[in-house]
Amino acid sequence: MDGFQEKLAATAGRIGSALDALLVLEPRQGEIARPERLMAAMRHGALNGGKRLRPFLVLESAALFGTGENDAMPAALALECVHCYSLIHDDLPAMDDDDLRRGQPTVHKAFDEATAILAGDGLLTLAFELLGSEACHRDAAVRSDLVVELAKAAGLGGMVGGQMFDLQAAQDSPDEAAIGTLQAMKTGALLRFACEAGAMLGGASPAERVTLRTFGEKIGQAFQLADDILDVVSDEAAMGKRVGKDEAMGKGTLVGILGLEEARRRADRLVGEAEALLSGFGHRADVLKGCARYIVSRQQ
Amino acid sequence: MDGFQEKLAATAGRIGSALDALLVLEPRQGEIARPERLMAAMRHGALNGGKRLRPFLVLESAALFGTGENDAMPAALALECVHCYSLIHDDLPAMDDDDLRRGQPTVHKAFDEATAILAGDGLLTLAFELLGSEACHRDAAVRSDLVVELAKAAGLGGMVGGQMFDLQAAQDSPDEAAIGTLQAMKTGALLRFACEAGAMLGGASPAERVTLRTFGEKIGQAFQLADDILDVVSDEAAMGKRVGKDEAMGKGTLVGILGLEEARRRADRLVGEAEALLSGFGHRADVLKGCARYIVSRQQ
Repeated sequence: MDGFQEKLAATAGRIGSALDALLVLEPRQGEIARPERLMAAMRHGALNGGKRLRPFLVLESAALFGTGENDAMPAALALECVHCYSLIHDDLPAMDDDDLRRGQPTVHKAFDEATAILAGDGLLTLAFELLGSEACHRDAAVRSDLVVELAKAAGLGGMVGGQMFDLQAAQDSPDEAAIGTLQAMKTGALLRFACEAGAMLGGASPAERVTLRTFGEKIGQAFQLADDILDVVSDEAAMGKRVGKDEAMGKGTLVGILGLEEARRRADRLVGEAEALLSGFGHRADVLKGCARYIVSRQQ
Repeated sequence: MDGFQEKLAATAGRIGSALDALLVLEPRQGEIARPERLMAAMRHGALNGGKRLRPFLVLESAALFGTGENDAMPAALALECVHCYSLIHDDLPAMDDDDLRRGQPTVHKAFDEATAILAGDGLLTLAFELLGSEACHRDAAVRSDLVVELAKAAGLGGMVGGQMFDLQAAQDSPDEAAIGTLQAMKTGALLRFACEAGAMLGGASPAERVTLRTFGEKIGQAFQLADDILDVVSDEAAMGKRVGKDEAMGKGTLVGILGLEEARRRADRLVGEAEALLSGFGHRADVLKGCARYIVSRQQ
């Protein structure tokens, strides 16, 4: 591991601990009770050793504007809850029908389908509670704004819509532009939100907010290209999930359309563009730039 | 129809029109695209002629504190989106496995399971976007507060948790107290939120807010008793969905434990208590009191 990966792993550990402390059986004020089985399923889906890339980006983007890790953590956790919910629902038999996720049984395999659906619903709902709560930010206008932006990124015009397009892709054979739209929605929107949320938490200027948002869009596109490349060249053991699946299902991917070499070139170009966007921040943005490079060089 | 039912039906029409205008294909600022099939499924789940009781309660509770219908409508729509999402997910084969809802095919029958899961996810997410948006309330603190309260009412310590307990009820044979908890979570929490949200929108005092919240809890309990009674005495044609189901699945209900007569007495007592809570508002609360009575006298 290089320096960046060590930092990511250490932060992922703290994010995991914070999620662990969040997902407890004790009901909070205003709640009635928390069912044990549901909580166990939510924990299974959320505490399975993910890379925590999205919350990491929230924390690092916020740090760029002087906001400390503890202050940015609730919003970071909210985003990770949304990511984990999306994995639980995407893995369901009616959707991508995956039995393995990060080398472990998916939630509906470890529990059952009904519990998995509810665990996803619970994590999605919890995300908005976290963003709306005072601990997220002292300024209620920032909290409301985060709620709206996450809802747009995660909803029918973002991630959920992207999953819908993805389910239709096997029939529709989307062209390059349609794949771009699908990926910008399914994966890009949350990565974009991650970076923009940090700027919002840190009180960035409107111009800085656009910069971070655009940085998130670029690395989101690079991330998806890297994912498509890994789906072709990687093996199941390294990924902890099925690979070669897009091709097997007849879904067009950018790698299929562009070829492996051009896909790699584009990913590298996007990372270069993303890094350039942050040039005005000097060395303070080194971690975010390292994250951009990591996104295309990762092996899983 | 008596005067109350006429008013409810007229308001339901306006709520339906507002939902119709909300659920359109045109992406909004910050969104990328809205998939046609997903939108059609969300519309199928949300525009199927429900009674709109929960948003009606938001509007009427807000009116008690001088907030007009248009100003309270976004929050009312948010709550209805959550209610409709919960019906879509509850009807899924892995959950209650229902083919009919209000006499129409359920979303997974009219479309497919994956689309139904995503339609529910999309409606839930949209609800929080509505609450966080400036149109919901001019004061961001009120918007954030609504987000937190709806998340608590709808999440693992509220509705989602209640559905989990409900799925386990066939095995667990819950006693009266456990059924009360289950029902307070599964049905009660959203009705409680409906009334409290109106008070929040209208700038009610803390004491008034507690009054409306408690009113919502009482009518929630009465609603569930009435539902259990209808499940026993009604027929499928009147309800537009399967009846006698709780008994067939071996789930304990309060009617089963208390008997029909005692259940009816309790429902009437709860309505009386709910009405008494609003005595300080005089005739201004007549509609809400009428709603409480309607809840136990309705035939579907």
